Amino acid sequence: MTAPIVIIGSGFAAYQLIKNIRRQDSTVAIQVFTADDGDEYNKPDLSHVFSKQQDADALILLSGADFAAQYQVELLANTPVERVDTQAQCLYANGDSYAYSKLVFATGASAFIPPVKGDCAAKIVTLNSLSEYRRSQLEIKQADRILIMGGGLIGVELAMDLQTSGKEVIVVEPNSRLLANVAPDFVSLKLEQPLRDGGMTLELNDYVTTIESFAAEQAFVVSTKAGKVFDVDCVISAAGLRPNTLLALQAGIEVKHGIVVDAQLKTSANNVYALGDCAEINGRVMAYLQPIILSANALAKQLLGQLSQLSFPPMMVKVKTPTYPIQVGGRFNTDSSWRVAFDKHGVTAEAFDDQNNMTGFVVTDENAKQAFSLLRKMSAR
Amino acid sequence: MTAPIVIIGSGFAAYQLIKNIRRQDSTVAIQVFTADDGDEYNKPDLSHVFSKQQDADALILLSGADFAAQYQVELLANTPVERVDTQAQCLYANGDSYAYSKLVFATGASAFIPPVKGDCAAKIVTLNSLSEYRRSQLEIKQADRILIMGGGLIGVELAMDLQTSGKEVIVVEPNSRLLANVAPDFVSLKLEQPLRDGGMTLELNDYVTTIESFAAEQAFVVSTKAGKVFDVDCVISAAGLRPNTLLALQAGIEVKHGIVVDAQLKTSANNVYALGDCAEINGRVMAYLQPIILSANALAKQLLGQLSQLSFPPMMVKVKTPTYPIQVGGRFNTDSSWRVAFDKHGVTAEAFDDQNNMTGFVVTDENAKQAFSLLRKMSAR
Repeated sequence: MTAPIVIIGSGFAAYQLIKNIRRQDSTVAIQVFTADDGDEYNKPDLSHVFSKQQDADALILLSGADFAAQYQVELLANTPVERVDTQAQCLYANGDSYAYSKLVFATGASAFIPPVKGDCAAKIVTLNSLSEYRRSQLEIKQADRILIMGGGLIGVELAMDLQTSGKEVIVVEPNSRLLANVAPDFVSLKLEQPLRDGGMTLELNDYVTTIESFAAEQAFVVSTKAGKVFDVDCVISAAGLRPNTLLALQAGIEVKHGIVVDAQLKTSANNVYALGDCAEINGRVMAYLQPIILSANALAKQLLGQLSQLSFPPMMVKVKTPTYPIQVGGRFNTDSSWRVAFDKHGVTAEAFDDQNNMTGFVVTDENAKQAFSLLRKMSAR
Repeated sequence: MTAPIVIIGSGFAAYQLIKNIRRQDSTVAIQVFTADDGDEYNKPDLSHVFSKQQDADALILLSGADFAAQYQVELLANTPVERVDTQAQCLYANGDSYAYSKLVFATGASAFIPPVKGDCAAKIVTLNSLSEYRRSQLEIKQADRILIMGGGLIGVELAMDLQTSGKEVIVVEPNSRLLANVAPDFVSLKLEQPLRDGGMTLELNDYVTTIESFAAEQAFVVSTKAGKVFDVDCVISAAGLRPNTLLALQAGIEVKHGIVVDAQLKTSANNVYALGDCAEINGRVMAYLQPIILSANALAKQLLGQLSQLSFPPMMVKVKTPTYPIQVGGRFNTDSSWRVAFDKHGVTAEAFDDQNNMTGFVVTDENAKQAFSLLRKMSAR
């Protein structure tokens, strides 16, 4: 008997891969190892759980057991993988060894928590998974004032959702602006204004240094490098993700920012692949839905012995900030030139490279509707 | 004998008017009343005295006496006007009364100092005139750390010049950005970045509340509304100008923001005119060089009995920030739409009204060279 395809992880990437495999092949054996319970949920929903007043259980689409039954996979829930042996083509978990024909790392990424001092530093909350949300949902629900460390994509989405749900929100961001790695500066400022007008405190060019207990109350005193002091009920870190690469690294697989893969999602080890937030493709870790969907589709073919070569078209990222929608497409960097229209419907910005080729765009507010036509315009060139 | 043309004030507007009159008429009697010594200087030079290491005397182009001789005017220096009687067509100064045939208010504007508490609140410096600079130049020269209240046009110009001259500079600005009344937000942020990179502290969304003495040292402890505390050697207010209208108001002349004048620079009183920073034309006080030059030219004709109707073409304002030049043309407001190009040479931004007519523009950095061609483009429409 051939050993199964083994997938480590049960997040969006893993489950997207399974669905793609099963669309083509209903019988190949698939084994899934996951450290949690393997419930299927839609991770982007975590960006609006507060305004929708959803608790963690309400986000579950299928329980792990139901998912396993529906897609005919063997789910080893609550079973962390201890070690991978790429020579013997097996892994170790639960005291046993399990052979694989193909192994897929879909180990995801973990929320990065910047180093902070103080007796309450350990009480920083992260919200990068359903289980993290489950662990903190009561604390967040009861909080009046919430401080978010980090004003990037996730920080901003959480901040706006928490503000919408009635919380007083403070965002502390080391950059001079929000969305520093997502959107150009002139878009950041158009977002910052309505957030401030809505009562949000944006503490830019600053970061949290200590979190201490508030005498006699269930609250925290948060101090920043610039000398600000905030009394809050909850501190959330949204300071970026770190790909979970330790297991791969210990197995001798090449790791840089993430687990290094080629255009077939192959790692440096034979029959070993990586997918999703843990993978580094062409030097980039792309923790967004669209590249994962494309990667999962290509990898399913690959695992079933078909030829596939992953290539990414210009892609879009939607910033889930409903009161000021932002849609980002393609690529741009600090050397990009921009042609921009600001009007009462928002921003329409097109990015160009040195050769005057359009490489990306950003549209906001009502103009966000133009995203697909700009994507077509760019792709047509 | 006909009574002379009397001008109250000896600033740029007054002296520009005198030069225009003398270009056409070398004999008409002109009398100038001024509370200071009447020295002629180029006021915009005050924006770069620190980097050029010029003291107040170095800025004087002509002494008051020399100016009076050269342009054949009777200068009453150090002679504040006490009262104007528009019925009797005379004014009172020095215990005497002086008749006028035509009277011109060129009383200028005074630096506004926001209300601040603390034992050193009275030590705030202003730099709106040569005499103010003379009074404070030593203090500024000896200061290492300088805090500027206000990040508008003047505040930014002073801040950059002080930074260039080697000072540590802190700008405290109540708006969320610099140049809030001068340039659109996306231009402000392009200026803020190099200032911050150069080590300037920009404390936005904040204002100074108290200035107290620093124990045992010739320094100040400045506290802000947001709770920041800065130890500095000098505090400069650049929080805007207030037209000097009291004398006109007491004479029963109509005053709103400034002394109200029509397109002939006429006030509400017979044979009384106003010019420069003290005047309100079409509801606007325009404390910039170009409108004053145009107004002085029109008023000279008017005073000499010629027909003249003041109309302003699209005008330009140059922000004297040499390391990030900004040139603003025409008009725009928060309802304007913008078409903007950002590239490595700076910003080129064109403003449009509801009917899609170009009404103004902003160009920065190397693109500032395009200012005149954009001005022509706009005027041609």
